[in-house]
Amino acid sequence: MLMQMRVVTLTTDFGTVDGYVGAMKGVILSAAPGAVVVDLTHDIPRHDVNAGAFALAQAARYFPTGTIHVAVVDPGVGGERLDLVVEVHGQTFIGPDNGLLSLATRGPRAAHRIANAAFQRVPVSPTFHGRDVFAAAAGRIAAGALARDAGPVVPAILDLADNARRADGPGEAGVVVHVDVFGNLITSFEGRMLTPGTWTFEGPDLTAPLRVPAGRTYADVAPGELVTYAGSAGLVEIAVREGSAGARTGLRRGASLRATEPPA
Amino acid sequence: MLMQMRVVTLTTDFGTVDGYVGAMKGVILSAAPGAVVVDLTHDIPRHDVNAGAFALAQAARYFPTGTIHVAVVDPGVGGERLDLVVEVHGQTFIGPDNGLLSLATRGPRAAHRIANAAFQRVPVSPTFHGRDVFAAAAGRIAAGALARDAGPVVPAILDLADNARRADGPGEAGVVVHVDVFGNLITSFEGRMLTPGTWTFEGPDLTAPLRVPAGRTYADVAPGELVTYAGSAGLVEIAVREGSAGARTGLRRGASLRATEPPA
Amino acid sequence: MLMQMRVVTLTTDFGTVDGYVGAMKGVILSAAPGAVVVDLTHDIPRHDVNAGAFALAQAARYFPTGTIHVAVVDPGVGGERLDLVVEVHGQTFIGPDNGLLSLATRGPRAAHRIANAAFQRVPVSPTFHGRDVFAAAAGRIAAGALARDAGPVVPAILDLADNARRADGPGEAGVVVHVDVFGNLITSFEGRMLTPGTWTFEGPDLTAPLRVPAGRTYADVAPGELVTYAGSAGLVEIAVREGSAGARTGLRRGASLRATEPPA
Repeated sequence: MLMQMRVVTLTTDFGTVDGYVGAMKGVILSAAPGAVVVDLTHDIPRHDVNAGAFALAQAARYFPTGTIHVAVVDPGVGGERLDLVVEVHGQTFIGPDNGLLSLATRGPRAAHRIANAAFQRVPVSPTFHGRDVFAAAAGRIAAGALARDAGPVVPAILDLADNARRADGPGEAGVVVHVDVFGNLITSFEGRMLTPGTWTFEGPDLTAPLRVPAGRTYADVAPGELVTYAGSAGLVEIAVREGSAGARTGLRRGASLRATEPPA
Repeated sequence: MLMQMRVVTLTTDFGTVDGYVGAMKGVILSAAPGAVVVDLTHDIPRHDVNAGAFALAQAARYFPTGTIHVAVVDPGVGGERLDLVVEVHGQTFIGPDNGLLSLATRGPRAAHRIANAAFQRVPVSPTFHGRDVFAAAAGRIAAGALARDAGPVVPAILDLADNARRADGPGEAGVVVHVDVFGNLITSFEGRMLTPGTWTFEGPDLTAPLRVPAGRTYADVAPGELVTYAGSAGLVEIAVREGSAGARTGLRRGASLRATEPPA
Repeated sequence: MLMQMRVVTLTTDFGTVDGYVGAMKGVILSAAPGAVVVDLTHDIPRHDVNAGAFALAQAARYFPTGTIHVAVVDPGVGGERLDLVVEVHGQTFIGPDNGLLSLATRGPRAAHRIANAAFQRVPVSPTFHGRDVFAAAAGRIAAGALARDAGPVVPAILDLADNARRADGPGEAGVVVHVDVFGNLITSFEGRMLTPGTWTFEGPDLTAPLRVPAGRTYADVAPGELVTYAGSAGLVEIAVREGSAGARTGLRRGASLRATEPPA
C-alpha cells in the first residue's frame, strides 16, 4: 500500500495559546493520519487579511505540488462570505473568500465553495470554521477526496486590491506592499529596475526625500545605514542594516512612493 | 514491517527561545524515530496551570485514538507532586500531577506514576522533568511500551476546581472560564440556554449590567458591538466584533456572572 | 523502497509572521518529501548570534544521529562570511560562519563551504540565504547527498568567545552565560561544585552580594525566594521560585560573577 504523505500547511491569526490551532491539527490528523502538518504562522496580526495573504503567497510557491494550504484570518466567520477550496498550480488552498487566498492563487484557478457535508464537521460552529470547515476539508482532501467534490464552482473569488501591481520603471508610482518583522520595506517596484548609484524615494508620508544607495545586501553599507536592493521576493526593498527602515522612515504598508534613479 | 506513526503533541509554558522545547523534541524522536511531533502551544502564560489545562482540553478531543499528549506547566517541578501518565478515551496524557491534565482527562482514567527508570532519562534533572521524564516517557510509549508499565497505579489525580461545571439555566450563577487571545469571554453557561433576544449579564466585577444581543456569530452585529453566542466549545461566549470583550468589560478568568434571559 | 525520514530542525530569528520560515520549509520539503521538519525556535532575539548558538547547542545534543540542523541568525547575510555545512557527532549543522554553529559543534568537526550549485537555489538571493542556501542544502542532504560534496573543506570556523568555559571551583571567576525565558541565570560554574549551604555571589553588576541557598530545585524554597542548583545543562543556575532572577538581580548575559562556598 502506498502511504501518501500530503503536506498540509497552516496560516492563522489565532496565536497558539488557546488550543484553537491544536484543535485544527487534531481534526486534520484524525481524517488523514499520514498528513504532514506544517505551521507557516499563527502570528498574523489579528484580522489583518492583507498580512495573511502576503505571508501565504510568500511561502506557498516553495512547497511541492500536491501541498494543501489552510489559511484562516476570518473576521467575517459565520457571515455571508463563502468557504473556499481553490486549486492552482497543482496546489490546493482552503480558507474564507475575503481576499486571504487571492495573492497566493494568481493564475488559472479552479474555485469551489465548501458545501458538501462530507467536507465538514457537522454541526459546524458558526464561530470556528477553521476547525469545522477548513481543517475538516483539508483532512478530507489529504485523505484522497477531490477538491472539486467539495461543492459548486465559484466563478470568481474576492481579490485584494492589487497594490502588488509591479511598477518597473523609475519615476513610476509605487507603494509599500509589506513591512516585515525586521522593519524592511518591501515595495511594489520590480527589483530589476535598480541600477547602481544613489536612488531617491519621495512620497506624501515622508517628511524629506530618502536618498538611498543601491546595493546587493545589507552588508554593502555600515550598520545603521539605509540601503536599497532587489529583495528575495524579486521586489525593491529599503532597509537599515541591523536596524529598522520602518521605524526610521515611519512608512507603513500602503504608503505611496515615487522612485528617481541616480543621475547619469 | 509496519511503521507506526504515533502522534505526540506538546503543550508548555516554555516559549521556544531557549531550546528547552527543542530538547524535548530531540528526546522523543531519539526514542521513537517514527513519531509525529505536533506543537499545540508553548505560549501558555508562565506557571498558569489553569490556562494550560484549558488549552489542552480544547485541543485533545480532536486528535485520533492513540495520540500521546505531553503537557508541562510545572512550577513545582522536582518537588513532591507526582509525574503522571494517564490513559483515557484511547489517548495518553503525560505531565505533572498539578491539575494540568485534569480537564482533558475527564472520564474513566487509568493513571500511573512514572517510576520505572526505563521511562526516564537517568539521571533526571530536578528542574527539567519536561525533558528527562515527560518527553522520555512519551518517546518510550510512542515506541511501543505500555503506559501501565511506567509505574504504580495512582488512585486519584489532582483535579482543578471544577469551575467548568456547566450552568445551563438563566438565573443560575456562572463564571468566566477563559479569556481567549481575541478577548472573547468563554463562560460556564451551556450554549443551548441562549434563546434569541437581548441577554443581561451582571456580576461583582462589572460596574453596570451588560446587555448583549444573542446571535450566531460575530457577523450578526456591527464592528465594535457586543454579541453573545454558543461558542465552539459548546459554551456561551461574550465577544466584541473585531474587538476585545475582555478589554471592554474588564472581566478576567474566574469572574462571577449571572445571566438573565430576554423578557418574553 | 526505503523511505528515509531525515529529521531537519530549524532555528532562526525570523519570527513567523512574514512567511520566510514557511518558504524555508517549502524548499526543504520540495527537495526531500520524506523529511521531518521540526521547529526548534524562530524567536531568537534579532541578530543575537549568542542566544541562537546557546539554544541550538542546548537542543541539538538530544536529537538522533543523522539529524540535520539548520540555523539562521545572520546579520551579515550576503557579505563575506561563508555559508557552512558542519558534520560532528553524526549530525549535520548548516548555517552562516558567524559563530552560530560553534557551541553546538564542539568536537571533531568536518566543515565545508557551501559552494556547489546543486546545494543551492540559483540564483541565490543575497538577502535570504536561509531559503536559497541553507534550506536548499538541507533539502539536498536530507534527500541523500553527502555534506562533503557541498564544497571545499573549511579548516576552521568562527568560534564564539568561549564564555562557556567551565569554572568548577568556588572562588574562581565565572559569568552569566544565558538568562532564560523564566529569568533563570545560567552561569559558567559547573553544577558539581554546589555543596549544601548558603552560597555568596558577587560581581561588578551587583549592588550587594547575593546570598543564595543551594537546593535541588525551585520547590526547595518558598515562592519569591532565590535558590541556586545544578541546572539541566549541568551548570549552576540562580533562580527565583515562580519569579525572575534576571529581574530581581538585574544581571544579564556576560555579567561577571565570583562564587564563595558556604562557611564550613
